[in-house]
Amino acid sequence: MTTRIERARRGIVTEEVKEVAEGEGVTPEYVNKGLAQGRIVITKNVARKEEVKPLGIGEGLRVKVNANIGTSVDICNIDLEVEKARAAIEAGADTIMDLSTGGDLDKIRRTLMEAAPIPFGTVPIYQAAIEARRKKGAIIYMDEDDIFKAIERQARDGVDFMTVHCGVNRESVESLIRQKRLLGIVSRGGTFLTAWIKYHGKENPLYKNFDYLLEIAKEYDVTLSLGDGLRPGCIHDATDRPQIQELLILGRLVEKALEAGVQVMIEGPGHIPLDQVEINVRLEKAICKGAPFYVLGPLVTDIAPGYDHIVGAIGGALAALAGADFLCYITPSEHIALPTVEDVREGVIVTRIAAHAADIVRRKEAKERDYNISKARAELDWEKQAQLAIDPEKFKKIRDERSPRQITDVCTMCGEYCAIKLLKDYVRAEH
Amino acid sequence: MTTRIERARRGIVTEEVKEVAEGEGVTPEYVNKGLAQGRIVITKNVARKEEVKPLGIGEGLRVKVNANIGTSVDICNIDLEVEKARAAIEAGADTIMDLSTGGDLDKIRRTLMEAAPIPFGTVPIYQAAIEARRKKGAIIYMDEDDIFKAIERQARDGVDFMTVHCGVNRESVESLIRQKRLLGIVSRGGTFLTAWIKYHGKENPLYKNFDYLLEIAKEYDVTLSLGDGLRPGCIHDATDRPQIQELLILGRLVEKALEAGVQVMIEGPGHIPLDQVEINVRLEKAICKGAPFYVLGPLVTDIAPGYDHIVGAIGGALAALAGADFLCYITPSEHIALPTVEDVREGVIVTRIAAHAADIVRRKEAKERDYNISKARAELDWEKQAQLAIDPEKFKKIRDERSPRQITDVCTMCGEYCAIKLLKDYVRAEH
Repeated sequence: MTTRIERARRGIVTEEVKEVAEGEGVTPEYVNKGLAQGRIVITKNVARKEEVKPLGIGEGLRVKVNANIGTSVDICNIDLEVEKARAAIEAGADTIMDLSTGGDLDKIRRTLMEAAPIPFGTVPIYQAAIEARRKKGAIIYMDEDDIFKAIERQARDGVDFMTVHCGVNRESVESLIRQKRLLGIVSRGGTFLTAWIKYHGKENPLYKNFDYLLEIAKEYDVTLSLGDGLRPGCIHDATDRPQIQELLILGRLVEKALEAGVQVMIEGPGHIPLDQVEINVRLEKAICKGAPFYVLGPLVTDIAPGYDHIVGAIGGALAALAGADFLCYITPSEHIALPTVEDVREGVIVTRIAAHAADIVRRKEAKERDYNISKARAELDWEKQAQLAIDPEKFKKIRDERSPRQITDVCTMCGEYCAIKLLKDYVRAEH
Repeated sequence: MTTRIERARRGIVTEEVKEVAEGEGVTPEYVNKGLAQGRIVITKNVARKEEVKPLGIGEGLRVKVNANIGTSVDICNIDLEVEKARAAIEAGADTIMDLSTGGDLDKIRRTLMEAAPIPFGTVPIYQAAIEARRKKGAIIYMDEDDIFKAIERQARDGVDFMTVHCGVNRESVESLIRQKRLLGIVSRGGTFLTAWIKYHGKENPLYKNFDYLLEIAKEYDVTLSLGDGLRPGCIHDATDRPQIQELLILGRLVEKALEAGVQVMIEGPGHIPLDQVEINVRLEKAICKGAPFYVLGPLVTDIAPGYDHIVGAIGGALAALAGADFLCYITPSEHIALPTVEDVREGVIVTRIAAHAADIVRRKEAKERDYNISKARAELDWEKQAQLAIDPEKFKKIRDERSPRQITDVCTMCGEYCAIKLLKDYVRAEH
């Protein structure tokens, strides 16, 4: 099958490319060049049944936001996850990932894909590991076949992008063991594979058989999201040798994927102190030939569970400013529990704020919304401010609860002493 | 009277300096040098009645957080403001500013100072303007005497630091008018003074009589916080000529204040896009001889009213990383209404997160808490994680609502597939 990359390399401008270009305010040629060079991906599986608007992710495009949802062993309610998917889309998520680990995984995935007609991602190793646990008694009893069957099944189902932890191999795991981290591994997929490698004394099938993985990806034009299974799990471990060792491995795999015409992104941490965020992004871009960088947070401190959506927004804004293309949201429940519907909503909005704050620096057009809401503010037009706000409902709720009584074109913070109103009355009147 | 600066210049190590140094993990000599050079202030009025722990703000010290409270014309309830003061302190605010504009201003201020035995700030021009409005019919009828009487009264009452908009003068106002901003002035004090200058055709008394202001400040060792009355009010206006013109004027006044032995800080924006945050901080430090920089947010996008505490945390973390010393919180109600008690609490915590994220880069010692909570996480010690979290109550609430049922040392996100637990079982066991 011909992939998007191959078509782009031949200079074919598809409808899909035109649609992405138009939505982003760039030329189709720009998108094609990005696709051809691996700096842009369009996350769409050719087998996806639902009608999905093509989404571009990468250099020069709007920063995108992903929401993770999915069941767990303890909280396994398919309707609740559908509700979360809808809340995420309503709040403006660009993509959704199903990270379910409880219940009938195929059924849940298919139901969520139907409920969420936007680019959809998964981590197939979860299914392989969980089914091995159920059928054979332990995660480590999964075999290569289990892993690739899960990947194929999900690709056939139309999953648009997949996290595959190909960089967790003997080399990087040895580096990890030498490192003596405070918080060894915090990636579930990374742990499954590390345990597997150590138990069987064999190489990670996703690394060893990367060519086979590319074949599957190619057949469906699935975007591979090369997972950072060894990402540090706390500030103390940030930007250490195992992390960078894994990145180097992923860099080699990016080259192989691009040669094969397979779209690829790189996943990044995780936990990074403020002064190391930029270097992490620049390093990824340098090592991985400019492949789109998909970061989780990053969290810039460990002390705020309950507020990690905000901690992630701080790190995410900075990462996107430095060049990260895709932000995975964090919810207020991160590190404590499976998120609620309200957490999902809050997580998406806050991450969109971070993405937008970087966008207005990355792309001039993005500033228009800031200009318009500021103009409405200058005109004391409260209706319009609400309309243009990222969350009009929350805006209206706050204003309605505490609306001004006498002078109604101001707010209850300053009342008649509103700087904007006073300036209008006293100064502007003179000019 | 001898001021702190003068004592520091003579090499006198006071108990106060020792206390600040000890709390910050620096030497008393370091604090004294900072005081002498104007890089550090200790915000304490010698007339303050309440027992207040001395607080240092400036280079090399922990980043501090201020919470603004106070009545407005529409919402004027002294008990509510006392409750906000208590909530702010409980949430960890380092200082409180009373920005009341409604009710009996003297009574409110004195009540709040009693309720809040931490460094206390005000903006005396509010009282001068509001009393002129009440007695004479309009803000612009306030005279020089009204302004200085308000300052003296508040200094005598023990106010520890005062915002004085000395840089709003004919020169900077002319620059403002030439600029044709989208959102002229958003500082209330800045508007009062600009209106006054334009109406009377006279120079700003706070600028013209700066020496007299210094005399008052010196008598009580009040820290002057030189306000940025012309700070831009939206991203579109950010870092423009009037803003920088005012900063240049403040830079000259810093020199005068230091010569007189008066402690001084500089207030900064406001609204700054991500890529201009660092240059704003560095510019202030260069122009104002390293005087402590007190920023409001900054907000890195305008589109998120309802979430401006988070927008401010993004900007604040970046500003503090670049060298800002003091962050004024923003609450979720900013731009929409006077904050509630819950808003105050949320605003303080979120701003403390931003301050801490910068602190762990600025000062090694600050990382200890991140290390300890990460260690508790590695040990799956949920009790200890809650204890070390910035908001233990919120942590416990989330965990209690959604606690794991079978395997109880994990959380409901991953359950038995907890990476940390698996790694313990499979990998660490072998070593």
